[in-house]
Amino acid sequence: MPKVNHSYKVHFLPHDREITVQEDTTVLEAAHDANVYVSSICGGVATCGKCKVVVEEGHVECPPTTLLSSEELANNYILACQARVTGDLLISIPPETRIEGGKILLSSEETEGVTAGKVHGPLPGVEYRHEPLVRKIYLELEPPTLDDTLPDYERLKRAITLKTGIPMESLEAGLEILKELPSHLRQAGSRYNVPLQITATVAQRGVMHEVIRIEPGDTTQVDWGLAVDVGTTTIVAELVNLATAKVLDIEATYNSQMKWGEDYIQRIMYATERNALGDLQQSVIKDINGLLAILLTRNHLGPEDITAITCSGNTAMIHFLLELDPTLIRKEPYIATANFIPPLKAHELGINIYKHAPLYCLPSVSAYVGGDITGGAMAIGLEQEELLCLFIDIGTNGEVVLGNKEWMVCCSASAGPSFEGSGVRHGMRAASGAIERLDIAEDSSLNYKIIGNGTPRGICGSGLLDTIAALLRSGAINKSGKLVKGHTPRVRETEEGLEFLVVPAPQTATGSDIVITQADIQNLIRSKAAIYSAVATLLEAMHLKPSDIQRVYLAGGFGNYLDVRNTITIGMLPEIPTDRIRFVGNSSLSGARLSLLSQEAMTRVRDIASKMTYFDLMSNPKYMDEFISANFLPHTNPDEFPAVYQELARRHPSFN
Amino acid sequence: MPKVNHSYKVHFLPHDREITVQEDTTVLEAAHDANVYVSSICGGVATCGKCKVVVEEGHVECPPTTLLSSEELANNYILACQARVTGDLLISIPPETRIEGGKILLSSEETEGVTAGKVHGPLPGVEYRHEPLVRKIYLELEPPTLDDTLPDYERLKRAITLKTGIPMESLEAGLEILKELPSHLRQAGSRYNVPLQITATVAQRGVMHEVIRIEPGDTTQVDWGLAVDVGTTTIVAELVNLATAKVLDIEATYNSQMKWGEDYIQRIMYATERNALGDLQQSVIKDINGLLAILLTRNHLGPEDITAITCSGNTAMIHFLLELDPTLIRKEPYIATANFIPPLKAHELGINIYKHAPLYCLPSVSAYVGGDITGGAMAIGLEQEELLCLFIDIGTNGEVVLGNKEWMVCCSASAGPSFEGSGVRHGMRAASGAIERLDIAEDSSLNYKIIGNGTPRGICGSGLLDTIAALLRSGAINKSGKLVKGHTPRVRETEEGLEFLVVPAPQTATGSDIVITQADIQNLIRSKAAIYSAVATLLEAMHLKPSDIQRVYLAGGFGNYLDVRNTITIGMLPEIPTDRIRFVGNSSLSGARLSLLSQEAMTRVRDIASKMTYFDLMSNPKYMDEFISANFLPHTNPDEFPAVYQELARRHPSFN
Repeated sequence: MPKVNHSYKVHFLPHDREITVQEDTTVLEAAHDANVYVSSICGGVATCGKCKVVVEEGHVECPPTTLLSSEELANNYILACQARVTGDLLISIPPETRIEGGKILLSSEETEGVTAGKVHGPLPGVEYRHEPLVRKIYLELEPPTLDDTLPDYERLKRAITLKTGIPMESLEAGLEILKELPSHLRQAGSRYNVPLQITATVAQRGVMHEVIRIEPGDTTQVDWGLAVDVGTTTIVAELVNLATAKVLDIEATYNSQMKWGEDYIQRIMYATERNALGDLQQSVIKDINGLLAILLTRNHLGPEDITAITCSGNTAMIHFLLELDPTLIRKEPYIATANFIPPLKAHELGINIYKHAPLYCLPSVSAYVGGDITGGAMAIGLEQEELLCLFIDIGTNGEVVLGNKEWMVCCSASAGPSFEGSGVRHGMRAASGAIERLDIAEDSSLNYKIIGNGTPRGICGSGLLDTIAALLRSGAINKSGKLVKGHTPRVRETEEGLEFLVVPAPQTATGSDIVITQADIQNLIRSKAAIYSAVATLLEAMHLKPSDIQRVYLAGGFGNYLDVRNTITIGMLPEIPTDRIRFVGNSSLSGARLSLLSQEAMTRVRDIASKMTYFDLMSNPKYMDEFISANFLPHTNPDEFPAVYQELARRHPSFN
Repeated sequence: MPKVNHSYKVHFLPHDREITVQEDTTVLEAAHDANVYVSSICGGVATCGKCKVVVEEGHVECPPTTLLSSEELANNYILACQARVTGDLLISIPPETRIEGGKILLSSEETEGVTAGKVHGPLPGVEYRHEPLVRKIYLELEPPTLDDTLPDYERLKRAITLKTGIPMESLEAGLEILKELPSHLRQAGSRYNVPLQITATVAQRGVMHEVIRIEPGDTTQVDWGLAVDVGTTTIVAELVNLATAKVLDIEATYNSQMKWGEDYIQRIMYATERNALGDLQQSVIKDINGLLAILLTRNHLGPEDITAITCSGNTAMIHFLLELDPTLIRKEPYIATANFIPPLKAHELGINIYKHAPLYCLPSVSAYVGGDITGGAMAIGLEQEELLCLFIDIGTNGEVVLGNKEWMVCCSASAGPSFEGSGVRHGMRAASGAIERLDIAEDSSLNYKIIGNGTPRGICGSGLLDTIAALLRSGAINKSGKLVKGHTPRVRETEEGLEFLVVPAPQTATGSDIVITQADIQNLIRSKAAIYSAVATLLEAMHLKPSDIQRVYLAGGFGNYLDVRNTITIGMLPEIPTDRIRFVGNSSLSGARLSLLSQEAMTRVRDIASKMTYFDLMSNPKYMDEFISANFLPHTNPDEFPAVYQELARRHPSFN
């Protein structure tokens, strides 16, 4: 007898969203389809235990798991990735599984706009000519006469050339623009007497410039673009006024592709083996469209107001975004389909903005170093630097660039998403409610600072880094990162092992304790070890010592703040004078924004991508040795961290 | 009571095609929708009487008409444009209304292909570098290794740059090509060992070059393009091998837009007033697709084999083709939407060739001088000429260019379609069965030559020109073009007036007499007068005399042959030594073909379009005076044609 497929309704709380799914769909898939975010790291294979949800009504089929406590089981907790729908369900998503982004606060430098015709990055002195990739140009066209019978199209091009200097032969318009041109010009003014006043939107396309829109009158102030950092774990979008270079708003979301794997290698395997590349593309497009919808609604704009989009991301993420075959990225000799993507139509990808708006991807260096890094290097002005610089971008991959205006080498290490707040029980993005700074005083009391100054909901990257450093300094964890039982009452034992209580339930927004577990600490140590060993391997390959580094730029979505001393305390960075270290925030996003606002900036990114040399860590035996040695706090070798060892020994004579 | 709309079947013979139409549709519209060609000149307003068809079964509603003889009425002849469908019908299209193109014969020079890297026009010595706008390039790509991890896309561009010298930064591919690239490269060879052998198809787009196709292996010999002359009355398409520059086949059709008006001004009015621009576009696209289907079927090719198309045509026809607003072409100050059209995707217009194939339009000079003229001027090498040249293209408009490599002026006169065989009772295109040469001997016997050497079906342009000249020389018509009753038994009287019997019914393919009517002669005289007066006005404006002209190039779709002496005898051209006059055939088509085959040729066309100065005849009072004086054979003024007057006076002492 053929199997009959039943459909059931699954209703999600507190979102109050309902979806109808086929029998045997997992609750995680149902949530994804209903646009309900459920935390999940392991790709749905029941190892991370992040996707806990509560069955309020109905019944699901679940295999046994050790990832839920007996208390949780008693309270109808299930793992969403394992539970299969066998009837109508009412599911509630508890706060710790829900963790959604609030509005990220902007630092003042991010919103400052244009100064003396220049736009600015996160560092003083790094600036590029304000000349957006897509520009609105106000024009007054003389109406045709018997002595000047230039056609509408050539008349338009002549006016643009006169105003901008763009050569007429590199100006072009598509068929739809040509079709609309006569009526748009005539709408703009009477036919014979007064100048035809219009605004042309011109997009740079390599050596060409394309007229993508004609509007009657002067609309140059209604001029919006979107800069997107397409991260493996987090996607962040900024709404930018192209005319003023001011950032109006920003929004972030976890990357929904996480259900197919924490890192992009897992996702490439999934895409290849399941022939599911299209699903990965749809997922990221849906995320971007979701961010867009929020930004547009919040700022009373329409999709057609956005005339340009720039995307920075690692090579694999850009391949997913464009549905380019990523298979060869993970197969020797590790190549991409393309590093330099030509400008595309955003609409062609399904991104819901103005139909002729181009989408620009920042170029990659290699299969493992993408536009997030080339864009970041441009944002910090690496290509203009005289000094020897180390630029580290800490995301799900930790990419390290060493160099200056003369040369640049780079490498990539798989760091995992823990500093993005993922893969850590109470980790979260740098959004309202996140603990972004933390310190343990001599008297064992905790001091912390919350983004938005409300009650805490979790801990973001900078807070997690501070927490590890504070635990180490206070002696609550040892060199191996193990929590020391009985060191303080905050270290307590649970069914799953030891954990450190950061904020007790009554003081949290979620109603649950905020803790750091032993497993969290191990994840964070592995992440920092990946970064350190990448730096050490690259330095050695270039025959350089840490003391040769004159500047360190540390980037990542940690938050608005990073205590750079703690990056040395935990052994993420080698011992370098802290005054040489700068935290530059999300430099990938800065790169996307500067490129959007400045053709000069985009040209620099392309120069950087051409100039940077990729160094493969995986084929280097030194890297694994370094990684193993770095899996301690700060490091197995005291000689590499004399000052940290000295400080820790001063605080805890037993340390070593 | 609301009106109920009935549908009826209309079946056409001898085509054996049936279509269902709404009640009250005209038979002409039904024929058009059924793809059955019915001759029609006046735009369906019952003035030309060309659309005679026979009702074999059924009944139609017709208003009374004087355009049908009582014999025709007795035999169920109707005017298709006036008859409305009120029931099922069986209609037969008589041969004289049917007149369809056979295969046009090619002269040897048209098929000669490449010599020493050059392609050739209709004249010796005019040649351009063979480098098609769309080129196939065979490449052997070294497979990637750990030491050479260039991505597929950049690897492809590097190989093209090495082979062609096209700078990498001006090479680009669209998203679909990028998506297919890895699999096409891997299909071409094993991944790591042997070079990846592929053929890239690269299209020039202004200063850019776009990779529009990747195929495994070497496919450089399967390389086809289409050159199309989009005329007001006739559309001609040539199938060209881009690799060898040889013309494989050619096909022509009358322009189906004729049902909306004989000249393009009528069609612009129709498009504007009825908001029917889309219909005009669909009509010409359907005609081109029809020609394509015939050429492809006859030569065992598929639509996807055609990777490029060039179109030459007057400015209005190009506007119809692209659905660009033509309204301002006919309103002072007479401007086009665009003279220089950027390359477009043929698919975007609905032309059924390879999906990424570009369509290039030859550029216009003004609203009334189009790419047929700039292309023709390039084909004859006008921009390289030292001598003062007169270039005349006789189509539905007669365009005249005067100049050389230093300067060029041009104008346009409305000549009507009579030399294209339209608007003349037994006129036809230069196709099999057309009388292309004709002479009347001293003994009044007729000699004629038929294209394809079969039995005659009608008379093409060159034959009509010969006929008028022969009638004039023999005395069968007088200076006013009036047939002289009783001059020969061939001059006979009918209900509609006098006519001259060219070929009696038993010797024709249609079973009817082939005749020239008094009305035909008047149409042809008006056409030649329009040309002559345009030449005279332009010469006078430039303060030149006919004797200053060192070369005359006469172009048009007359046939393979033109007796240039007769163009002077009838007063179409001023008296210029005949050894200075060359017939160059369809130079618009030659221009489209040379542009297709040579980027250099297309660059020259653009140079010509930029350089040529348009001279407006309509605003010049001299033109109408000249036109009236030229409405005689050869001309009212004997001083302008002394030799012709002398010859005619010698033959007919009564002449003058």
